Amino acid sequence: MSVHTDRSSVTVLGLGPMGRALAGAFLDAGLRTTVWNRTPGRDTDLVARGAVPAASPEEAVAAAPLTVVCVVNYDASDAVLRQDAVTTALKGRTVVNLSADTPERSRDTAAWAGRHGVRYLDGAIMTPTTTIGTDAGVFLHSGPEELYREHRPVLDALGGSHTHLGEDIGRAAAYDIALLDIFWTSMAGYAHALAVARAEGVTAEELAPFAGGIAAILPPLFTQFAADADAGTYSGEVNPVTSAVSTMAHVVHASEGHGIDASVMRVIEGQARRVIALGHGADAFTRLAEVLARR
Amino acid sequence: MSVHTDRSSVTVLGLGPMGRALAGAFLDAGLRTTVWNRTPGRDTDLVARGAVPAASPEEAVAAAPLTVVCVVNYDASDAVLRQDAVTTALKGRTVVNLSADTPERSRDTAAWAGRHGVRYLDGAIMTPTTTIGTDAGVFLHSGPEELYREHRPVLDALGGSHTHLGEDIGRAAAYDIALLDIFWTSMAGYAHALAVARAEGVTAEELAPFAGGIAAILPPLFTQFAADADAGTYSGEVNPVTSAVSTMAHVVHASEGHGIDASVMRVIEGQARRVIALGHGADAFTRLAEVLARR
Repeated sequence: MSVHTDRSSVTVLGLGPMGRALAGAFLDAGLRTTVWNRTPGRDTDLVARGAVPAASPEEAVAAAPLTVVCVVNYDASDAVLRQDAVTTALKGRTVVNLSADTPERSRDTAAWAGRHGVRYLDGAIMTPTTTIGTDAGVFLHSGPEELYREHRPVLDALGGSHTHLGEDIGRAAAYDIALLDIFWTSMAGYAHALAVARAEGVTAEELAPFAGGIAAILPPLFTQFAADADAGTYSGEVNPVTSAVSTMAHVVHASEGHGIDASVMRVIEGQARRVIALGHGADAFTRLAEVLARR
Repeated sequence: MSVHTDRSSVTVLGLGPMGRALAGAFLDAGLRTTVWNRTPGRDTDLVARGAVPAASPEEAVAAAPLTVVCVVNYDASDAVLRQDAVTTALKGRTVVNLSADTPERSRDTAAWAGRHGVRYLDGAIMTPTTTIGTDAGVFLHSGPEELYREHRPVLDALGGSHTHLGEDIGRAAAYDIALLDIFWTSMAGYAHALAVARAEGVTAEELAPFAGGIAAILPPLFTQFAADADAGTYSGEVNPVTSAVSTMAHVVHASEGHGIDASVMRVIEGQARRVIALGHGADAFTRLAEVLARR
């Protein structure tokens, strides 16, 4: 069996909470799983479950045709992968980098991989550690499709859904950035809403079901606005920016009246007012997508 | 039949898109519906459907025991209701103000109503005009429960779900503010994500299903964090602020690298760094709710 077609072993570099979850899912699927972490001692539980501890990253990557990297960012993955001994050991093998960073860092890593004969796929994990090995995990991948197909059987051991977004190596990171943008901005809105609610004597548990109701209307709105956004039309028939902006002002006013920092909504209200001043007041708020990128 | 127990007629003041939807739902339910709008000409379709046009707001409110007000904000509702002739005509009758504004404006209106013998309920409509008269509408109410019960049969003609949040007249507005805070902040995140995605060659229609997937994980997270937030614990076991903040930095970096305004995420990242600096780096990001209100 050639090293490329060996689907029974895998290496995991990086044993933070997510890396440990990935390695655990590979072990559960019966793969020979070699593990390494820069800081020692993180592999204890995994080794007890059958993982093979490697003494160095070069030993780790040499143990399998596929190395999955999951560290804090690409500074951290570069620090491991771009050591001479590791780069040499990776020649002809495949790296799937599931660490999060920007599309430009993915492209830079792909260029490095190309120079050194390392086969490279990029990926992003869109769901929490608790979803790994379950149906709920969401994995995005980008890079050479053939390479993706080759390693898909091993990646499937992680459970969940896997989507290949295209050959552009930066595409998984681009989706990752855009989706985390939505996620953390929404969470910032929730945290702020909790502060305002509390100041008004409304508990988080009282607000949560209604907050969930608001989140539930977002997916159809996202879909509805998507076609408009691609067409550059941004129809504001149902809810024009001019109407949205007074709501934003209420949020700022009510928050600051309670001594609560409203700087996020102040920025958003300012952006909405800029959309109006640029002549798009009758459009939907999503017209902002173009105004933010205005040159 | 006393004016209070007449459940066959209603008045609607304010015929913007939402006011027209409300009046239309009342007409569909067979109620005698009197309508008035400051700017004339907005009632044409409604009158064709059977609505009674009033020549003045005082004539309008005198026509029914219950007046539903839906204008742009409380400056606008004050301008209508606090005219002597209107206030006089409202004595002993009920106003439900479904206009959006801050809790303090609701309380101020309740005080005015109390001084003039006007019976007053406050409310908020959480869903778009298209949901009025359907099962999908969400209405929040606050104020005297007995008054709410009395008018509930007429309000039910609007369809959807109606929730009485308590006797505190500001409560509907407090929920409204908090929920619109979540909504518009999330939409700002979506608009920004569309800009970043486009710069990376990803269309809105490509992103939308994944964006919807992100929105879909929010309701359970909101519920999960609610108990923690009320208890002041903000457990960050799964995703500590220290880990979230590097994601936020990626969003800022990738956006600004494309010349896209990232000021909202810059503010959010700054708030997260402040949470960390205050010693809460191991907590969940929702700890921000307390930091925003810090004195």
